[in-house]
Amino acid sequence: MSPSHLFDPHHDGSPRYVLDQAPKLGSTVTVRVWVPDDPRPGATPPDGVWVRSVRDGEPFIVAATPTPAAGAVGLGTWWEAGLLVSNPVTSYRFLLRYDDTYRWLNGAGVHDRDVTDAGDFRVSTEHQLPDWVPDQVGYQVFPDRYAHGGEPVERPAWANPADWDDPVVHRGPDVPFQWFGGTLDGVRERLGHLRDLGATLLYLTPFFAARSNHRYDAASFDEVDPVLGGDEALRRLIDAAHEVGLRVVGDLTTNHTGETHPWFLAAQADPTSAERGFYRIHDDGSYESWLGVPSLPKLDHGSAEMRRRLYDGPDSVVAQWLRHGLDGWRIDVANMTGRLGADDHAHDVAQVIRRTMAAERPDAWLLAEHGHDASLDLAGAGWHGTMDYAGFTRPVWSWLNGGAPGSAVPHGLQFLGLPAPIPVRPGGAVVASLRDAHAAMPWQSRVASTSHLDSHDTPRFRTVAGGGTSGWVDADGLGREKHLLGLALQMTLPGIPVVFMGDELGLTGLDGEHSRTPMPWDRRDEWDHPTYDGYLAWTALRRAHLALRRGGLRWVHVQDDSLTFLREHDDETLLVHVARADHPSVELPLAHVGGLDLLAGAAADVSRDRVRLPAGPGAHLYRCR
Amino acid sequence: MSPSHLFDPHHDGSPRYVLDQAPKLGSTVTVRVWVPDDPRPGATPPDGVWVRSVRDGEPFIVAATPTPAAGAVGLGTWWEAGLLVSNPVTSYRFLLRYDDTYRWLNGAGVHDRDVTDAGDFRVSTEHQLPDWVPDQVGYQVFPDRYAHGGEPVERPAWANPADWDDPVVHRGPDVPFQWFGGTLDGVRERLGHLRDLGATLLYLTPFFAARSNHRYDAASFDEVDPVLGGDEALRRLIDAAHEVGLRVVGDLTTNHTGETHPWFLAAQADPTSAERGFYRIHDDGSYESWLGVPSLPKLDHGSAEMRRRLYDGPDSVVAQWLRHGLDGWRIDVANMTGRLGADDHAHDVAQVIRRTMAAERPDAWLLAEHGHDASLDLAGAGWHGTMDYAGFTRPVWSWLNGGAPGSAVPHGLQFLGLPAPIPVRPGGAVVASLRDAHAAMPWQSRVASTSHLDSHDTPRFRTVAGGGTSGWVDADGLGREKHLLGLALQMTLPGIPVVFMGDELGLTGLDGEHSRTPMPWDRRDEWDHPTYDGYLAWTALRRAHLALRRGGLRWVHVQDDSLTFLREHDDETLLVHVARADHPSVELPLAHVGGLDLLAGAAADVSRDRVRLPAGPGAHLYRCR
Repeated sequence: MSPSHLFDPHHDGSPRYVLDQAPKLGSTVTVRVWVPDDPRPGATPPDGVWVRSVRDGEPFIVAATPTPAAGAVGLGTWWEAGLLVSNPVTSYRFLLRYDDTYRWLNGAGVHDRDVTDAGDFRVSTEHQLPDWVPDQVGYQVFPDRYAHGGEPVERPAWANPADWDDPVVHRGPDVPFQWFGGTLDGVRERLGHLRDLGATLLYLTPFFAARSNHRYDAASFDEVDPVLGGDEALRRLIDAAHEVGLRVVGDLTTNHTGETHPWFLAAQADPTSAERGFYRIHDDGSYESWLGVPSLPKLDHGSAEMRRRLYDGPDSVVAQWLRHGLDGWRIDVANMTGRLGADDHAHDVAQVIRRTMAAERPDAWLLAEHGHDASLDLAGAGWHGTMDYAGFTRPVWSWLNGGAPGSAVPHGLQFLGLPAPIPVRPGGAVVASLRDAHAAMPWQSRVASTSHLDSHDTPRFRTVAGGGTSGWVDADGLGREKHLLGLALQMTLPGIPVVFMGDELGLTGLDGEHSRTPMPWDRRDEWDHPTYDGYLAWTALRRAHLALRRGGLRWVHVQDDSLTFLREHDDETLLVHVARADHPSVELPLAHVGGLDLLAGAAADVSRDRVRLPAGPGAHLYRCR
Repeated sequence: MSPSHLFDPHHDGSPRYVLDQAPKLGSTVTVRVWVPDDPRPGATPPDGVWVRSVRDGEPFIVAATPTPAAGAVGLGTWWEAGLLVSNPVTSYRFLLRYDDTYRWLNGAGVHDRDVTDAGDFRVSTEHQLPDWVPDQVGYQVFPDRYAHGGEPVERPAWANPADWDDPVVHRGPDVPFQWFGGTLDGVRERLGHLRDLGATLLYLTPFFAARSNHRYDAASFDEVDPVLGGDEALRRLIDAAHEVGLRVVGDLTTNHTGETHPWFLAAQADPTSAERGFYRIHDDGSYESWLGVPSLPKLDHGSAEMRRRLYDGPDSVVAQWLRHGLDGWRIDVANMTGRLGADDHAHDVAQVIRRTMAAERPDAWLLAEHGHDASLDLAGAGWHGTMDYAGFTRPVWSWLNGGAPGSAVPHGLQFLGLPAPIPVRPGGAVVASLRDAHAAMPWQSRVASTSHLDSHDTPRFRTVAGGGTSGWVDADGLGREKHLLGLALQMTLPGIPVVFMGDELGLTGLDGEHSRTPMPWDRRDEWDHPTYDGYLAWTALRRAHLALRRGGLRWVHVQDDSLTFLREHDDETLLVHVARADHPSVELPLAHVGGLDLLAGAAADVSRDRVRLPAGPGAHLYRCR
């Protein structure tokens, strides 16, 4: 990847480049390419631009024409073409012809060679989003650990009670049973914290009755766990959230249930029961389960009755809880749901859940958990988006890993399931990975996907960033600088930022279980306030600027230690410059970015015809004039 | 792409690296990675190797262990792991850990950053090949233009008769009607030419009754065109071919018929007919057709009755002609078949054709025409392979384009449907495109796919290579050198080479229609004999060396003007060095390639511990000792 992309021709799926964001099958959508003037010696502009799309399986080429459309920052030419939306997902890329050669422009950038279709842009009739979705700032709550509240709850049989300040048990058989006793009323009573923080959406990990603190082992899909306060507590929480303008998203395990779920008990008790067909139980009584864990028997999506009960139609669990007030569902291990050996119902499951939701509540959001390359699962109707571990978390960690000497992070902090430490990659590698991960997704999927610095399934980002795990918060601020750089990326890149509860306080954590720390409400003076202030500032910027929430993404400059990009929207164009270390200063021609009004960080140096961005570590946000 | 790959860790799907080539679902296959010793300063070997596969949608990591297995050329370490074949197509790649970082090894090579799953290797239970397929050298015949023979044939109503030496009409409305009158008996009488040339397989473009010289507008699927000699002539041809050890593959249009096909006539005549459902006829009488050409109405694969007649079951066209003796089918525009707007039956069509063929004749071969990235259409059961325009023809043309100044090729010779001239790319770009195109295919699909320098649908490669079109053959030999380099790549890379009739004589052609030149049997003295001799030599090498037909492919060295690779097989390992121009000499450590026995081209220089490959243009083949 060449360090400077400022003169690269550009297209993405955002409204500035794709003029109809909700195209109908058979319609023709205007698509645009921005070709910046390239002042470098020897550079020549393309003498023609074409859009190449795949129609009914066959590539077609349509010429673009230069157009006087306004709106771009800088000097250059808009090329415009009509793209026939021939299929539910129509893939396309651009050919730029230069005298005796040509280049391709696809979702991963500009290529001086032939490419496969894997990185093509996609326009989709299937990924139309509820309008509210891209504007959210999410906040993830693990109910057992957020806050006490409401009526005192009796200890459930499975639980080992813990005091709120006890260390989190994160290894060994007791992990799922350590019970801190947070409740949904507790969440409700602390909604003010979400509001203060600038969050607009509450994502709750499972609240159904279960036999563990994480509740991914559902014992019911019909009843909110009484340990959390029951159905009425959820109702109160949703109502209170809606009252203050917060959306609420639930978490559903469609891949498996717990072994104490009545369906599974019935299936085991009676081989002739309807529920027997809900699972894959072998003749010897053994059965398929999530990763071979017997307490989590895997559902068989070949069963129409199971589908009807869980997600197909208005009587299903999926529909019923939307009626209860939920604004959407996050689907647990969506990547595994319906997949087993020769059976692969995964796309069908996604489509049916979506259909059920659309019928019940057209503006509900459907988010899939997906820990790796999700592009093929986003290729058709189904999930609106996924948890973007592959395209956000992983690249950001490998750029901002601060766990090297000097910090308390063990060398071997595992990199999201890999048997290798988190590497430290140069910016070029990180951006290439990030672009590749998103290239094959329809833009709508990308803006409906979530960006997580971490979650209840990972180490805390603060620890990754160098904040160690020696204390409960990173009191010495060792990881603060990189943490706030990651936060800046989370709040300025496309994708819905979701903050895992406590990140805003500087909490640390060595692994997913360790990160499920109870919120330290009573120790406010111990919070890392500079971190908290950083969250306030960046969520406010996210909410204030449409370009951050809905704008396109155009890479401008990439170096080992600095990343510079534009977020382009008709409302305004913003320039983001994030650096992890001192770096060769980035100088951009004034005519190509315009003057820069400071929104966050430090001012850029403008001298004559150049803009020079700050050359030390930091995160900077500017509005292009 | 770094110019030298000799020290890159390597894996591919060939028998040396994947020990079971026909794995069963649920089995564990041994997979190996070769990690060459890297003598360069600072290079360290990996301290661990893992295979990462996607099981039921979820990534799993399994450790590899160093193993004393023999067989590799050079110095290094074999790492070996068990790969669970968890799904019909199981994708996998390798993680190589080095102290504080890691690299990925996938089908596109080694990466110092995170990658998507698009380039993963694939092991498949669905792509098991008839054993004879990878060993073929194919020869493509366009029946109207190959040879007269048999009984004189009456002029069909549609035809404009031409004398055998007339120029080919290649533009305008008369193109499909120029009739040279070749017959299947003519092909039969000239089978000796195929044998002489070293071909083992005859691929015939359509032979069914039609109203054009190309016969892609079938008027019947039940009758061989009487103009070609009828059913009995086909029978005689197949018998004669089989007698001399040649296989015969037919060409079927499943996407559309001709407008004179009885199905279409019935459909138009009677809206209540069964055949009405075979097509997509609108209320106003208009209908869907191939690229909007009304003479080629598009079939609707939603019709079970059409499927039954054409390809589903023992009474179908597909089955019936296998019983007549065909050894396989090439499916015309397979990429478009069954695709229209919101309907996409393409994968289902492929699977049903395959099932029908397997039931009729388990060793029949199913090849799909596909002009662009075919990887998604090879992801599941269906086509054994595709015509590899994307992964062979395009990269080779863009490396060996000789149409620059000095030749008679117009600057604008169109690049296979692109509105741009064929570029001249450096070797690195060409190899990267070639690797990307194949990365997402199961190895079995790659070896069951065909490599074409050209076909009846493209300009002649001789013209691309600089041979012009000023004459009937490239008499001045302007394109000979590059033509023979292309031939060497065709015969030494994986994929079944298919020679388009007349290429071996040095024929030229400006476009697909122009390339359909009658074979100049009576002008043997005008053939380009050095080219013909080149074909004899390279087909003989292909047939003599199992490693060329079934070996793995390991890139060793890539420069702008030279490509060097190994074909590895337990039988032997061969080294191929092809250069288009003088280039910096390629020196390889003797310990890593072994001594080189010359098989074709010029000897390598061995001095002390280095092997130096010839530094001028040419194609060279060596056996590694």
